[in-house]
Amino acid sequence: MKLSALFIAIEVGGTLAFAMSGLLEATRKRMDIVGVFSVAFVSAFGGGTVRDVLLDRRPLFWIQHEVYLWLVLLLVLSAPLWLMTLRHKLGGWLMELADAFGLGLFAISGTSIATAAGMPPLVALLMGAITAVFGGVSRDVLCNEIPKVYRDHQPYTLCALAGCGAFLAMHSLGMSAESASLIGIATATGSRLLSVAFDWRLPSWLSTSK
Amino acid sequence: MKLSALFIAIEVGGTLAFAMSGLLEATRKRMDIVGVFSVAFVSAFGGGTVRDVLLDRRPLFWIQHEVYLWLVLLLVLSAPLWLMTLRHKLGGWLMELADAFGLGLFAISGTSIATAAGMPPLVALLMGAITAVFGGVSRDVLCNEIPKVYRDHQPYTLCALAGCGAFLAMHSLGMSAESASLIGIATATGSRLLSVAFDWRLPSWLSTSK
Amino acid sequence: MKLSALFIAIEVGGTLAFAMSGLLEATRKRMDIVGVFSVAFVSAFGGGTVRDVLLDRRPLFWIQHEVYLWLVLLLVLSAPLWLMTLRHKLGGWLMELADAFGLGLFAISGTSIATAAGMPPLVALLMGAITAVFGGVSRDVLCNEIPKVYRDHQPYTLCALAGCGAFLAMHSLGMSAESASLIGIATATGSRLLSVAFDWRLPSWLSTSK
Repeated sequence: MKLSALFIAIEVGGTLAFAMSGLLEATRKRMDIVGVFSVAFVSAFGGGTVRDVLLDRRPLFWIQHEVYLWLVLLLVLSAPLWLMTLRHKLGGWLMELADAFGLGLFAISGTSIATAAGMPPLVALLMGAITAVFGGVSRDVLCNEIPKVYRDHQPYTLCALAGCGAFLAMHSLGMSAESASLIGIATATGSRLLSVAFDWRLPSWLSTSK
Repeated sequence: MKLSALFIAIEVGGTLAFAMSGLLEATRKRMDIVGVFSVAFVSAFGGGTVRDVLLDRRPLFWIQHEVYLWLVLLLVLSAPLWLMTLRHKLGGWLMELADAFGLGLFAISGTSIATAAGMPPLVALLMGAITAVFGGVSRDVLCNEIPKVYRDHQPYTLCALAGCGAFLAMHSLGMSAESASLIGIATATGSRLLSVAFDWRLPSWLSTSK
Repeated sequence: MKLSALFIAIEVGGTLAFAMSGLLEATRKRMDIVGVFSVAFVSAFGGGTVRDVLLDRRPLFWIQHEVYLWLVLLLVLSAPLWLMTLRHKLGGWLMELADAFGLGLFAISGTSIATAAGMPPLVALLMGAITAVFGGVSRDVLCNEIPKVYRDHQPYTLCALAGCGAFLAMHSLGMSAESASLIGIATATGSRLLSVAFDWRLPSWLSTSK
């Protein structure tokens, strides 16, 4: 009972954090209200939508839980009231925190749904990463940028994968889905917060452009 | 009988107008024949395809009505014959007219199909907007531009939403689907034509880039 | 028996060639390991995934044949070992060869699957082209470029279409699916290799930007 309430709170926080990242990026690109709402919407729901389409799940999760649509709509419509406040350090810190929780929860939701649908571990890992990351990738494509998660050399997708791996390991050891989810989310979100706090970087990849 | 003929005429006109917008944009980007056809195709069918995939409808509408494919193909292949003519003022005006009709019809088709599939009003509104707008968004992404409808500050998507709202209101009042569709299309297309004629603009959104 | 082994060999070669094109492009854009893997993955599986989603086929082909996922993963992880070698002329020539085989096989797989699903010839042709080309288109969109196949004025998609047309013609004449596939692949791959060897160009399309 309490646990599912916790999951819902995390999911709401993560959805809003992802929507916010779209809202901020679209605002930076000087889009109009339609663009800002569209990019916020795609940032929040893009990953889960692609997961549902790839796994052929209907209704889509944001149609099933229509309340998330209303929350994102309210977030965008109320943005003029609080957007200035967010520029303070506390706002940025809150954003990173909510985004890290969203990363963890979306990743585990993708992996656990794929596992429940009978997918093998590698596919379940990929579904976790796609669910967690594809919203941000779509946001950057719509804003005409190379996806940030592909080139910022920060461990973001890798944190999601670590969490998904922890979930799969615990699950295969016979742990309940709920406990395994908690450990997975803690792993993904925790490693992401650590990587932000200590500014961890990925080693650089080869370059052929020299 | 006559009414469905009217709808088909509007749908053909709208499809061709959307395809034309892709053709022109791809030509401007100096694409080759494959690029021009692809972008015209995506502009015309992208919105309806995404609607059908999100709602899990098969066959896709352009597979069910294969004649639309042939029309877009003919449009692209015959473009060298009439493309010069289009630069005259009359051509531009005809394009705006056909595009406004396409906007109205695609929007109402999205909303009415979603309503028939049991979707709640907010989802039906979104499906209307996605059907009307996503072809143009895909066109601009393929042409490596920020989607025009997100940043031109003109009421385009909002006209579509107004038409969808009018359809939903009439429908919930017990009006027949056909009459409600006519009113919805008239609202979307009419408000779009008015906004072009009088050059209406959306109020500017917040900017964080100062 | 031997024939299906041949098809599998071609499919593996084509998948790896497409993944490689993504790997190289992402490396050129200085992406990190996550970006390189994602773009390689999308380049290799994007076309077939869109085909499967449009035709509503599940499980997706790369979930059904999970080994392709492992191959692409190995390719990316082992890249530091051989990426330097590839810059030699032999490497570039091998890439073109594998890519041309991938083009042929992906195109015919799209057309034959669509035909088996009861699609009319024009739709089957389009599915062939989408399967062959959409991976590369997605690669370029993620790398923030106008898709190369839309603007390089080389016969690439047209070679795919020629192969699909040959397959459909042979198939409608009563030839077995396997023989028709071989002829289709030979047509697409052969015409592509010829067009590279002789540097064929498409005639230029109209330009409105003068």
